[in-house]
Amino acid sequence: MIDSSPTNTNTTDTNTECFPSPVYAAHVLTDLFEDAKRLFLDYMIEVDCAHAVMLAEQNIINKDDARTLLDALHKLDRKAIRAARYDGSCEDLFFYLESLMNAACGEEIAGKLHTARSRNDTDVTIYRMRLRRDTLAVMRATLDLRKTLLTIAARHHETLIPAYTHTQPAQPTTLAHYLLAMAEVLGRDVKRLQRAYEALNFSPLGACAITSTGFPISRTRTAELLGFTAPTVNTYASIAATDYFTELLGTVSTLVINTGKFAQDFLVWATREFDYLRLSDGFVQSSSIMPQKRNPVALEHVRALASKALGQSQAVLTVVHNTPFGDINDVEDDLQPLIANALRDASRAVTIFAAALSGASFNTERLRERAAGDFITVTELADTITRRESVPFRTAHSIIARCVTQSIELNSPLTYELLQTNAQAILNRPFALTRDEMRESLDPEYFVRVRTTHGSPAPEETRRALTVESEHARTDETWYAARIESLADYVRRLSSI
Amino acid sequence: MIDSSPTNTNTTDTNTECFPSPVYAAHVLTDLFEDAKRLFLDYMIEVDCAHAVMLAEQNIINKDDARTLLDALHKLDRKAIRAARYDGSCEDLFFYLESLMNAACGEEIAGKLHTARSRNDTDVTIYRMRLRRDTLAVMRATLDLRKTLLTIAARHHETLIPAYTHTQPAQPTTLAHYLLAMAEVLGRDVKRLQRAYEALNFSPLGACAITSTGFPISRTRTAELLGFTAPTVNTYASIAATDYFTELLGTVSTLVINTGKFAQDFLVWATREFDYLRLSDGFVQSSSIMPQKRNPVALEHVRALASKALGQSQAVLTVVHNTPFGDINDVEDDLQPLIANALRDASRAVTIFAAALSGASFNTERLRERAAGDFITVTELADTITRRESVPFRTAHSIIARCVTQSIELNSPLTYELLQTNAQAILNRPFALTRDEMRESLDPEYFVRVRTTHGSPAPEETRRALTVESEHARTDETWYAARIESLADYVRRLSSI
Amino acid sequence: MIDSSPTNTNTTDTNTECFPSPVYAAHVLTDLFEDAKRLFLDYMIEVDCAHAVMLAEQNIINKDDARTLLDALHKLDRKAIRAARYDGSCEDLFFYLESLMNAACGEEIAGKLHTARSRNDTDVTIYRMRLRRDTLAVMRATLDLRKTLLTIAARHHETLIPAYTHTQPAQPTTLAHYLLAMAEVLGRDVKRLQRAYEALNFSPLGACAITSTGFPISRTRTAELLGFTAPTVNTYASIAATDYFTELLGTVSTLVINTGKFAQDFLVWATREFDYLRLSDGFVQSSSIMPQKRNPVALEHVRALASKALGQSQAVLTVVHNTPFGDINDVEDDLQPLIANALRDASRAVTIFAAALSGASFNTERLRERAAGDFITVTELADTITRRESVPFRTAHSIIARCVTQSIELNSPLTYELLQTNAQAILNRPFALTRDEMRESLDPEYFVRVRTTHGSPAPEETRRALTVESEHARTDETWYAARIESLADYVRRLSSI
Amino acid sequence: MIDSSPTNTNTTDTNTECFPSPVYAAHVLTDLFEDAKRLFLDYMIEVDCAHAVMLAEQNIINKDDARTLLDALHKLDRKAIRAARYDGSCEDLFFYLESLMNAACGEEIAGKLHTARSRNDTDVTIYRMRLRRDTLAVMRATLDLRKTLLTIAARHHETLIPAYTHTQPAQPTTLAHYLLAMAEVLGRDVKRLQRAYEALNFSPLGACAITSTGFPISRTRTAELLGFTAPTVNTYASIAATDYFTELLGTVSTLVINTGKFAQDFLVWATREFDYLRLSDGFVQSSSIMPQKRNPVALEHVRALASKALGQSQAVLTVVHNTPFGDINDVEDDLQPLIANALRDASRAVTIFAAALSGASFNTERLRERAAGDFITVTELADTITRRESVPFRTAHSIIARCVTQSIELNSPLTYELLQTNAQAILNRPFALTRDEMRESLDPEYFVRVRTTHGSPAPEETRRALTVESEHARTDETWYAARIESLADYVRRLSSI
Repeated sequence: MIDSSPTNTNTTDTNTECFPSPVYAAHVLTDLFEDAKRLFLDYMIEVDCAHAVMLAEQNIINKDDARTLLDALHKLDRKAIRAARYDGSCEDLFFYLESLMNAACGEEIAGKLHTARSRNDTDVTIYRMRLRRDTLAVMRATLDLRKTLLTIAARHHETLIPAYTHTQPAQPTTLAHYLLAMAEVLGRDVKRLQRAYEALNFSPLGACAITSTGFPISRTRTAELLGFTAPTVNTYASIAATDYFTELLGTVSTLVINTGKFAQDFLVWATREFDYLRLSDGFVQSSSIMPQKRNPVALEHVRALASKALGQSQAVLTVVHNTPFGDINDVEDDLQPLIANALRDASRAVTIFAAALSGASFNTERLRERAAGDFITVTELADTITRRESVPFRTAHSIIARCVTQSIELNSPLTYELLQTNAQAILNRPFALTRDEMRESLDPEYFVRVRTTHGSPAPEETRRALTVESEHARTDETWYAARIESLADYVRRLSSI
Repeated sequence: MIDSSPTNTNTTDTNTECFPSPVYAAHVLTDLFEDAKRLFLDYMIEVDCAHAVMLAEQNIINKDDARTLLDALHKLDRKAIRAARYDGSCEDLFFYLESLMNAACGEEIAGKLHTARSRNDTDVTIYRMRLRRDTLAVMRATLDLRKTLLTIAARHHETLIPAYTHTQPAQPTTLAHYLLAMAEVLGRDVKRLQRAYEALNFSPLGACAITSTGFPISRTRTAELLGFTAPTVNTYASIAATDYFTELLGTVSTLVINTGKFAQDFLVWATREFDYLRLSDGFVQSSSIMPQKRNPVALEHVRALASKALGQSQAVLTVVHNTPFGDINDVEDDLQPLIANALRDASRAVTIFAAALSGASFNTERLRERAAGDFITVTELADTITRRESVPFRTAHSIIARCVTQSIELNSPLTYELLQTNAQAILNRPFALTRDEMRESLDPEYFVRVRTTHGSPAPEETRRALTVESEHARTDETWYAARIESLADYVRRLSSI
Repeated sequence: MIDSSPTNTNTTDTNTECFPSPVYAAHVLTDLFEDAKRLFLDYMIEVDCAHAVMLAEQNIINKDDARTLLDALHKLDRKAIRAARYDGSCEDLFFYLESLMNAACGEEIAGKLHTARSRNDTDVTIYRMRLRRDTLAVMRATLDLRKTLLTIAARHHETLIPAYTHTQPAQPTTLAHYLLAMAEVLGRDVKRLQRAYEALNFSPLGACAITSTGFPISRTRTAELLGFTAPTVNTYASIAATDYFTELLGTVSTLVINTGKFAQDFLVWATREFDYLRLSDGFVQSSSIMPQKRNPVALEHVRALASKALGQSQAVLTVVHNTPFGDINDVEDDLQPLIANALRDASRAVTIFAAALSGASFNTERLRERAAGDFITVTELADTITRRESVPFRTAHSIIARCVTQSIELNSPLTYELLQTNAQAILNRPFALTRDEMRESLDPEYFVRVRTTHGSPAPEETRRALTVESEHARTDETWYAARIESLADYVRRLSSI
Repeated sequence: MIDSSPTNTNTTDTNTECFPSPVYAAHVLTDLFEDAKRLFLDYMIEVDCAHAVMLAEQNIINKDDARTLLDALHKLDRKAIRAARYDGSCEDLFFYLESLMNAACGEEIAGKLHTARSRNDTDVTIYRMRLRRDTLAVMRATLDLRKTLLTIAARHHETLIPAYTHTQPAQPTTLAHYLLAMAEVLGRDVKRLQRAYEALNFSPLGACAITSTGFPISRTRTAELLGFTAPTVNTYASIAATDYFTELLGTVSTLVINTGKFAQDFLVWATREFDYLRLSDGFVQSSSIMPQKRNPVALEHVRALASKALGQSQAVLTVVHNTPFGDINDVEDDLQPLIANALRDASRAVTIFAAALSGASFNTERLRERAAGDFITVTELADTITRRESVPFRTAHSIIARCVTQSIELNSPLTYELLQTNAQAILNRPFALTRDEMRESLDPEYFVRVRTTHGSPAPEETRRALTVESEHARTDETWYAARIESLADYVRRLSSI
């Protein structure tokens, strides 16, 4: 009835009679063993400890057995485990730890550790524990980058720079205004990261294979022992849901897109032709023969690593996409290293960026010069005329446009005479505006100074905004410190039980 | 000095001397005009109205002019505008509306509408206004899908189904437990959508080109008039930031991945071989000659449209990626139709899914039969033995494993005699467990009934969970209704000013 | 036995008793009808014609019936069909055409058209027919862009430009060399597009539902009538395979990534600060008040549309990913508009790029000046010293590096005296090199002239390379013209049968 | 003038005064060193050897120095190098090797190795050398998978299976026909991989930094020494072009999408409910307590790894996207490990798939039973009636449809009596068709047997197709063996020079 087809005759090593096939061991299990040691060993042991404590407290196992288990768990030689090579004798790290526990306390007691739980809930629990750390690392880097931006901004409320639209100089603003724009965006990234963290910080432990157990376990207690806010709810969802990491990766995608955009700007600023930004020597790779060539490689790496983080985050979604809602390998051990790489590259990109910027210099003279060039202040002159001369907005605009065109032809700045000539030509009267008033209207400092509305570049307004952002920064540091402490705290408590 | 190279001799229509080049008009401006009419016309006019009202209130223009502008705006023939074909006479819809306003109230007054604002802030404002509606459409569909799941779940707290791990039947659970898992995940999607909505519901109007203006505008007032929570802050960020839509698309990505996973399950359930689910006729395309062939095409479309929504959401990130932080076309008119398509396909996928499920039938007999088959309740028997017979967990497991193996060989259910034989063989004593107790332990209803911990399938627990979810559903409907009313309200007020 | 759950009580329009449900009609069938009219109508009718001709030739239907069918097909009013709105009376365009044919020749004869074929093979055939045209449109744009690059290159074999590494000026080269690099890459894109075209130009018609038919059809004949190279082979694969478009989209992805890279360069070249490139007025959007502000929007649209093409190409793969290998909706009507959008945006990006470049001007003075600045020719001086003075390569390098450092400190060009001073200091002897020889070694023209190896910038070598590329261009134009003619030819022949 | 801003006071380790900054070393250089050792060490040394040989042959360095260099290169202790930890003393592996060479032959001679070349061309050369190996690994796996499919197909020309459309059984076909469909698709993957290989197998060495060199190097000779087909052409493109890997990854994307589709099918086939496919024990992870639960994890890993390969391939394009056309880090050392991971996961997925299938069993009884069920042969009966009874096609269809509907109501197979009753009712006459003829028409074997056209499932046709595919397989093995030998050959020759 069953047609067996042992066909692939040229694959000599496929003795497929018992598990694992050599091909399966070589191409799947070995990788998974290495990944698990690198990413999850500590968390596996912590889950074992917490589970043992809870089982004893709930009288599912007795206190002595729990003690034996905990002592053995505390004594596991993690360094030796990390050095172990996969040899196929155990399916994976989970069973390897079980074999070590069997050796340490005998199979009968060691076996009790598996009462009322499963690979499935253990796995999802350790994934979340790892993600907490990785998320906080991204958070740390993001907080640092914002702090760097704010620190620089604090010194440049009056530093004029040209703002670009469509890559062309468009209007003057200040360096503080520009950096505060970035800081504000990063502030929202911080909020998104916080929410993603809070969303994943629930414990699926106790969901067991997928329907929990008939044993009177306390999911609340293991959640508490492992530093989680609370247990997750529905046990099927605890195993099957993937939004605890897809939300996080969506958040990280936005963060690295933002970071990449900032890096694109600063890379242009660091060209010889713009000459606005100079990285410190620690972040520049130069040519031995061309010491003048300061390759801003740190910023290139920021862009590249941010791009990798984005690409890998999207790759994770691709892997999850169109798979069943349930316990499947696709969202488990094969996928976790990719998630870890995405988060690590995000941390790296943001960390390098913060460090490179913190030591960078801005060429404020050149920036100011460009903020005053290319007639980019003329919109303010048109506004002034609209306000003071009772001239319709579009008329004021067309007079100024004529002035600019003629000035370019004459290769001259915009003169008072030209302005009045054109006023006369179009309105049949000169403007009441004085020469000094015109000069003021064309001054980039004035341009910035009059822009005092909510969120504008006037120094008084950027100072106000900086105060607000700094307050956010303090609040977010408090949030961060509390999470770091919470994680340190559960480890401390668990290792001393 | 300048080397001009009019080279491409075979492109006969490239008279590039004045703007727009025919190629540019044909391949860029025509598309953008059609897109803008379809996606943004109403919002453009609303922004004009709100801006006019604010300008008058702030005494930047006089009341009479504002009245003239508002009357003209209210009288714009939107149907005729939508029917207009792009002819190159205006750069785009923005300027086309300006030309209509010029015709309606004269250039002088019409021109005043452009005081203290810019294309840039107008554009970002209308994008957000459009996104609000699109986001609420996705929300409506998501709320409907959750409601459908909860309504079905309410009737199936006792309906046994097999839960699968690795695509194999693993343990019994109930249909309510399974659907509540999905509903819980969707509840988090609802929360994420709410946050994305709140994050984008700020008004960038007044940021003007990128540095705001020296006119004493009230950004708070236009925000209020257009139904926004408040103005955005930093004006540079108002124009340059893209996280208002990348956060949303990240959120939608998670939603459609979840939806796709549910659809994958139900597609398998709808196969002849599983035979668990039957769509109603309205959602099935059948073959004229094979009336028995009920193609569950509605579910295929759910999967396909969810996939498109995911792919297009990722595509949006790809477009934004590695562009400068500032005003650029990449994140503006070219991109908006892609964002709109992503959101529309997400709405379609979720809407069709809710409708298809709401009329579907579950083959509860077949589900129950499969929940009792394949020995999938034996873990509970092992647990029972562990608890009642003081047998270590792993020992209980190995006795049961022997029983299962032997039963399969005998092509028989697991019998009491077999259990006792193996107990004797391994423990050298029979179990105290009675025949009835064994039968109960293997009963899928018992399996489910004893699983009463937090989030488990026991009917009392799914009833509790359903109550919680239903309460969330009510709260979320309130949130939704308030947002819908807020949008209706500002339109009403604005059109009557 | 079957539990029917008509649950979603708030969706008032879900009378799900007969097909199609209003929700399904509104969210699926209406879209598909509009898409099919826009994308596939002509091809559907052509397939009908070819099938009718073949059926008659194979004596599967009689000649008179075939004549009746063909006459009716030729008389179908395509304009009226395109104007039709979906009303739910037919499932889709395929059945709408059938109803029109029934009306035209009676159901009995009209019905014969469906002998020995199916929706499935018809669909895949028309998809491929559409893709042929779309692929040739991308090809046309690519050929134009290459031609534009070659035409400009032909005039600039001696035009010096700085070549950048890590965004810093690194060495002189010529504009021809730089543009030939792009042309060479595009030449490979042309080859890839040709192969993708040849790979998809096979006819799946006759595969019927998935296993072909027992009727003695001639798949070769319909392939010929529709301008295909030949029929596909395996009929299951004919319906299930998706590589005919995934290969194409992979190819397009590479093309638009290349295009986007070129556009990134030219966008930087078009900044005021670099000032290397000036677009013609037809491709520049300027500010009314700042006529000097020449926004290179055409290049921004190139980048944005190339990005969209990439994103949408990847989205197509996402939709196909993890679906069954067989006939499914996911790779059919829902997906085709996304494929069409990806290809259309690719064509647009490349077309606009070619047109914008063909009228652009290069600031050759500024380029030359930058090619001589920043000491970027010193590597050649080091090479010269290595060759002529029998000095080890690294020693020559370190002498020159000292010269550069000292020159920068002195804010001076590198002088002969400085060179000799350092030679003396390090080698304890002066160089035999004369002042003129040094000057020559530092001359960017010399730098370029001595680089004569395969693929180098020396004008004699770029002239040779241009000849080769131009020959490729001619060959590729011939290929293109033959394919265009082949498609015109089958349409001509088919419409006159 | 320059405003230096050493701001980030909380990063204590950012002494940014000299290169590399500790942050840069920790987050960039350490990773790159480890990656380079793992991925590129052998190729770096081979490039050094080839370059030294060519320099001597071209009299750019003398024979003795070349001998010294080659001897030192041959003696480098690769194992010790691989064990080295990054300590910041050298920038990267390239300079670490230089320091080892300096120690081995003195700086003066060691320095000569760097004559007429650069980091840039060396890097792109080693990337391509690595890609050759990785591409051939993917090829090997693909050839194996096709061979496995062909081997199984060869035994199943008459094994009936149901073919599915829209996940419902639609028509009978044979296992051979189905597997040949997959084999044919894989055959095109093989062709695409071959072309991608040939496209990347050109040597960029000699392009130097980006404009080649004035030294009389022979790019042809180094190309030959390193086993390349020839040198690339344009030196700027040699450094800047990325299509050598984007084409490859596009090709791999198509391959893994195909593989994933096959895996989706077989995963469904391996469910208990379908019960068509049984993996051998070596590829199944089972539950200790539920030995009957055969989790087809190998197929899940195939899907997951194929998905990862797809996601990572797309991620590579994301990283390259919107970067300048030139020498930049984004497409270099940061990116290469991601490319390597994508290719490795592709190899793993396809390798495991081939191995798992080669030991799998098909449940031919169950397949045949399903091929005869669900009335899926009735289309052939309708065709038969059309042919033999001179009944229009659509009429035949509607008679059969009535028969099917009535049979389902009666819960009976389709009987001869029912057929004649309906013939009488609709045509007013019985069919001439005999009872035996009807039975034959409904026989799935007959269904398959009459489908003899090009690519159809009739055994004679699948035998023919298998012969063709097997011939392709042989040709492709020859291609593969030649490439493997070519790579082995250059290594052999180079190491003995």
